[in-house]
Amino acid sequence: MPPSTPAASEPTLADLGEFGVIDRLVALFPQDEQVLVGPGDDAAVLRVKVGHVVVSTDLMVEGRHFRRDWAGAADVGHRAAAQNLSDINAMGGRATALTLGLAAPPHLPVSWAVEMAAGFAEECAQVGAVVVGGDLTRADQVVIAVTVLGACTQAPLLRSGAEPGDVVALAGRQGWAAGGLAVLGRGFRSPRALVEAYRRPQPPYAAGREGAEAGATAMIDVSDGLLSEAGHLAHASGVHLDLRAEAFDLPEPLQAVAAATGVDALQLVLGGGDDHALLATFPSTAALPMGWIVVGEVHEAGWSGAEGPAVTVDGAVHEGATGWTHF
Amino acid sequence: MPPSTPAASEPTLADLGEFGVIDRLVALFPQDEQVLVGPGDDAAVLRVKVGHVVVSTDLMVEGRHFRRDWAGAADVGHRAAAQNLSDINAMGGRATALTLGLAAPPHLPVSWAVEMAAGFAEECAQVGAVVVGGDLTRADQVVIAVTVLGACTQAPLLRSGAEPGDVVALAGRQGWAAGGLAVLGRGFRSPRALVEAYRRPQPPYAAGREGAEAGATAMIDVSDGLLSEAGHLAHASGVHLDLRAEAFDLPEPLQAVAAATGVDALQLVLGGGDDHALLATFPSTAALPMGWIVVGEVHEAGWSGAEGPAVTVDGAVHEGATGWTHF
Repeated sequence: MPPSTPAASEPTLADLGEFGVIDRLVALFPQDEQVLVGPGDDAAVLRVKVGHVVVSTDLMVEGRHFRRDWAGAADVGHRAAAQNLSDINAMGGRATALTLGLAAPPHLPVSWAVEMAAGFAEECAQVGAVVVGGDLTRADQVVIAVTVLGACTQAPLLRSGAEPGDVVALAGRQGWAAGGLAVLGRGFRSPRALVEAYRRPQPPYAAGREGAEAGATAMIDVSDGLLSEAGHLAHASGVHLDLRAEAFDLPEPLQAVAAATGVDALQLVLGGGDDHALLATFPSTAALPMGWIVVGEVHEAGWSGAEGPAVTVDGAVHEGATGWTHF
Repeated sequence: MPPSTPAASEPTLADLGEFGVIDRLVALFPQDEQVLVGPGDDAAVLRVKVGHVVVSTDLMVEGRHFRRDWAGAADVGHRAAAQNLSDINAMGGRATALTLGLAAPPHLPVSWAVEMAAGFAEECAQVGAVVVGGDLTRADQVVIAVTVLGACTQAPLLRSGAEPGDVVALAGRQGWAAGGLAVLGRGFRSPRALVEAYRRPQPPYAAGREGAEAGATAMIDVSDGLLSEAGHLAHASGVHLDLRAEAFDLPEPLQAVAAATGVDALQLVLGGGDDHALLATFPSTAALPMGWIVVGEVHEAGWSGAEGPAVTVDGAVHEGATGWTHF
């Protein structure tokens, strides 16, 4: 039975109605002392102590960013939250509050929405953030729209601060989710560790702030592919990044998938996103916090004959790892 | 030619690609002094001077909340912004910044996205708010996801503060957009004033703050139907609202549509949303600011034999104006 066809006895969004569903979802969202007005009014109101707010927004579309037969509802909720929390992480910040918009077909089981929202709230709770508002409406496919608010205790860490002479460093697993996706795309469910990594990423939530405190000069969240995100950082900073292939961990499950599918394991690492690893640059004298590994060096734009800001691997343009594009 | 099939020469989102389109959209969004980090990094950063932030989020789905053959792209952008700005208005606040998420099919003309975003930014500029971030991705139908941030100069105005003895008051046009929708739904394009009111609402943006300053006790944005929003306010406050039919303006275009379609003009006013009028309660001694008109009275819950919080019109339950439900 396809996931969009619930058992006859299972209540759907249409059965329960907008406000009935919203009541069930809101009940899943604990509030905290920063919340002056929580869900249920025209808007929420949050206390802001630090003089600024960091904000980011992302959409996840069924069939594009997730499939209901590849990941459970709770997994999808975890992923939707992780993707947004990671953006605050990449600013060196701490997420404080999120809004969750859900557009869905009327025949969607209420249980799917409830489990998704519960997974979403659980992921947020990992970093101490709360869900303060949302919207629920009807659409042909499931679309999850998230906005996250946060704060930095230091100056926000941008993509544009990398300097020639800096080192390039990575925090968090990288390539695991891409490996899981490769497996699922071929109809398999193992190696389990990779499939789980795709379904429920484990972003290095402490690494953003710790990297910032250690003096990181630029940082970006690897959501759409390592080389493509490295390219964004290189362009924003006006520099050249050269990565070293041997610096990357190629753990056993990645090698197993590579062997089984004929994909190069390094390719999964360089092209993969969805793990929400962080890529950053640090002065070469900086002591890197735990969890960060050096994977390359920053050169001036034009290094090694490249035209303008660019990314190379071992001094050469790397073929076939262009990252995820949305169109 | 259906609106989803662009002329062959017209570039589509797929032609220009994610980053090409984003560049065009971001160019439409002027920033201001509150913006410490604008679009283009992992997140935006806004200066917050008042110790709190007001936040609300909404989704608009093609075919559900708008049709591309009923409203131009710029109109859809204006409506998407208005719907969200109005939520801050209903808190007695001032909107400062918004994010704009767009999910769309690859064959959508770039010009549609650009005109929508331009209309969106224009509406935001009316209240001095700026667009600081967004997301662009692929979906089968157009979905617009907006989050608005703002601030209040007084305590946020909730739905829950109405007291028996208060008066009920309305600010802004009401029923006009519903009249326009009724006309469009029958394949007509006039009365022009109503069709335009549907396409591009004119929310009373000053009325929220002015109402708050005049001592309003509760306030709500009429987006889904006057009686249904009045019901939300009545429940949140634990009171009974009795509206007076004769208090509502029934302007000539509404009467013309009523005569032409057989719909009662008062019904368009009581059941209609989308104008983003404000409904509020004030102490009976308050001097109402310009633009607010008294349309009813607040009684204790259980008034006139009703069970619990409820809304009546001239003391009786009003049939057939249940408001918009999303499922």
